[in-house]
Amino acid sequence: MESPWDELALAFSRTSMFPFFDIAHYLVCVMALKHQPGAAAVAWKNPISSWFTAMLHCFGGGILSCILLAEPPLRFLANHTNILLASSIWYIIFFCPCDLVSQGYSFLPVQLLAAGMKEVTRTWKIVGGVTHANSYYKNGWLVMIAIGWARGAGGAMITNFERLVKGDWKPEGHEWLKMSYPSKVTLLGSVIFTFQHTKHLAISKHNLMFLYTIFIVATKVTMMITQTSTVTFAPFEDTLSRMLFGWQQQFSSCEKKSEAKSSYNGTGSLASKPVDDTSDKAKKKHTKKTE
Amino acid sequence: MESPWDELALAFSRTSMFPFFDIAHYLVCVMALKHQPGAAAVAWKNPISSWFTAMLHCFGGGILSCILLAEPPLRFLANHTNILLASSIWYIIFFCPCDLVSQGYSFLPVQLLAAGMKEVTRTWKIVGGVTHANSYYKNGWLVMIAIGWARGAGGAMITNFERLVKGDWKPEGHEWLKMSYPSKVTLLGSVIFTFQHTKHLAISKHNLMFLYTIFIVATKVTMMITQTSTVTFAPFEDTLSRMLFGWQQQFSSCEKKSEAKSSYNGTGSLASKPVDDTSDKAKKKHTKKTE
Amino acid sequence: MESPWDELALAFSRTSMFPFFDIAHYLVCVMALKHQPGAAAVAWKNPISSWFTAMLHCFGGGILSCILLAEPPLRFLANHTNILLASSIWYIIFFCPCDLVSQGYSFLPVQLLAAGMKEVTRTWKIVGGVTHANSYYKNGWLVMIAIGWARGAGGAMITNFERLVKGDWKPEGHEWLKMSYPSKVTLLGSVIFTFQHTKHLAISKHNLMFLYTIFIVATKVTMMITQTSTVTFAPFEDTLSRMLFGWQQQFSSCEKKSEAKSSYNGTGSLASKPVDDTSDKAKKKHTKKTE
Repeated sequence: MESPWDELALAFSRTSMFPFFDIAHYLVCVMALKHQPGAAAVAWKNPISSWFTAMLHCFGGGILSCILLAEPPLRFLANHTNILLASSIWYIIFFCPCDLVSQGYSFLPVQLLAAGMKEVTRTWKIVGGVTHANSYYKNGWLVMIAIGWARGAGGAMITNFERLVKGDWKPEGHEWLKMSYPSKVTLLGSVIFTFQHTKHLAISKHNLMFLYTIFIVATKVTMMITQTSTVTFAPFEDTLSRMLFGWQQQFSSCEKKSEAKSSYNGTGSLASKPVDDTSDKAKKKHTKKTE
Repeated sequence: MESPWDELALAFSRTSMFPFFDIAHYLVCVMALKHQPGAAAVAWKNPISSWFTAMLHCFGGGILSCILLAEPPLRFLANHTNILLASSIWYIIFFCPCDLVSQGYSFLPVQLLAAGMKEVTRTWKIVGGVTHANSYYKNGWLVMIAIGWARGAGGAMITNFERLVKGDWKPEGHEWLKMSYPSKVTLLGSVIFTFQHTKHLAISKHNLMFLYTIFIVATKVTMMITQTSTVTFAPFEDTLSRMLFGWQQQFSSCEKKSEAKSSYNGTGSLASKPVDDTSDKAKKKHTKKTE
Repeated sequence: MESPWDELALAFSRTSMFPFFDIAHYLVCVMALKHQPGAAAVAWKNPISSWFTAMLHCFGGGILSCILLAEPPLRFLANHTNILLASSIWYIIFFCPCDLVSQGYSFLPVQLLAAGMKEVTRTWKIVGGVTHANSYYKNGWLVMIAIGWARGAGGAMITNFERLVKGDWKPEGHEWLKMSYPSKVTLLGSVIFTFQHTKHLAISKHNLMFLYTIFIVATKVTMMITQTSTVTFAPFEDTLSRMLFGWQQQFSSCEKKSEAKSSYNGTGSLASKPVDDTSDKAKKKHTKKTE
């Protein structure tokens, strides 16, 4: 690569997230919270609970990575500036008269800009998580991947868990059983940056950050414009799963016999049938949507 | 303030919680556990589980603050004296022949004395939590408030969470969605003691402890005598919410329009109604049955 | 004891768990996971989630003990060799063509061998947990018991919790309300090894490890052959509970009166019924839906 590109990537990788990109991140997170059913009512009935949930939405990734590394989960409360920023955004969004912010946010360009800037913060979080985990476990690349993934996409898990504790949570919307697109792309980025950090990728960090950020911002914007929820990974995943689990057909064919033989599998498959049915339906729907 | 009052407050602030106030705290906690439906049956079927739950009720606040500060949650097990004390109280309450303790506890004066002494321990816990958190994060006043609140009132959250994991838990009784009176008064006290610790309140700590203890003990005793569950904060909260969220009326009036516009809010408010309905119905059922 | 026995016990206590016993442990854990309803389908739909669950099943005890001692729960990811071992076993079991492993595992001798070797690892885990906890809290024998128990049998709690978070979990199968046989025997072993470690048992550690391992392996194999799920503790527990809670009869007789007297117990018992009813209704609805 020639010099100007390098300079651009280097300057980009030195951009500070603090004022503007963090604001975009908090805006997207709190708007996502507000669009949950009943969130506005909760904000009126119990503002403290709503504020706490908003903080979880904004800082969930950091909290999860702190828990996974046995650091104080409350550390994010010590950063008063960001807390003040996120709290004021929560306050404006939920208690602005006539709901002006929501109406302004309902314009697509605003959403595109905010979502794009939020995706930029994702790259910074992944890199920070990978570097931070490396300071704990030298060459513990699995830990680095996990922490990078937790920082980048752990907020969804934390908020799902909080909704579970609160009682208003539906299992089919869970992150583990069905990885959402942000989780997948964050996992991919975490793997890439971990390999770059362990010198298995012959590319400088700032170039990788630049390229990865362009990739996730472009995909995110494309998805928002084309109204598609999951893209760009289906073929990749299919090939990968065919490579890894290529004998699915024979397997499922033998499954029948082995089930008939072993009582364990029998019970298992019997109990699992409703699950499979529902999941198959979900799959069909899913495929229809993606077509 | 003249000297005798100061001396009194100072002597009071130096009182040791260990033998008597801790006993009252454990007594109130374990009695609260025993009054949960099915707790006595569990104690017979699985004493270890019941003992564990009792320990959670007695030391829940400390456990939660340990979790929030990434300290070993099992630290409370290293204090053998208090564990022995709480365990013996749990044993006496659950396995005393003819349930003598419950009958003795059913007399109002005993309950008043025990509850009053338990409230005294609350002050000590809040102060300890605030001081402990300050040793972690200098001037991290949000962390200090959170840890003070967790030590003082976190037991309810821990026990709610344990009941959720156990399966016998009803979301409408959850602490987050509807802060109970102890949570509110503990949060207030945590804020006050944090401001005193950060020198924003021109009052000596022992005087503040004395006044706050008198306040919570008096309110608690009044509530128990007058059989009211929530008092003394409604007007304060109303004024505060009117100050902060004064345009609720216009807001809700505009809400309709904005809902009509943005599909998200529409679904949100629509989906939120049934939730309220069901919860109301559940409440009604509950009250009918308890009548 | 004469020398040859001592030498045998000493040699046994110096056996390394790494290659073979760990493999047996992972094999048993992953097979237990696969026999859960729907696990195979999840492995096809979302291999990452299935792999994560398998890791929880294999390393749950260590994760729980790390959480209880405020150590990074991700530490197990830093041990790449064991992770690779467990992952390959998970891969073979779930994606082997024609389900050969399950068919081979369905033979009783294989199950007996694997289960016996898994029980051996249990002893090593308990001893490791007790020793590790002692390095934190000198003579904190309660902590030592808890950590030894968590390392030896905590995997079941972790996996139950994960199934709870995932939504497919039935409260009646929970570890706390009804301790399973492994939990009981692990708790017993943890108590024994803690007393041995605090010099309250006049027996050398390697002899105790040898005897305890023989005991748990023998009981496990006996249980698997005789198809009994719970043995060998009922009489012991009965005598113990009779010693501790001997006045159950009078108690329960007085219970009626005391309930009639104290309003709390009354509401408690009344409130406990509707909970069961509602849960039953929910169950029925669920089954209807799945039909």
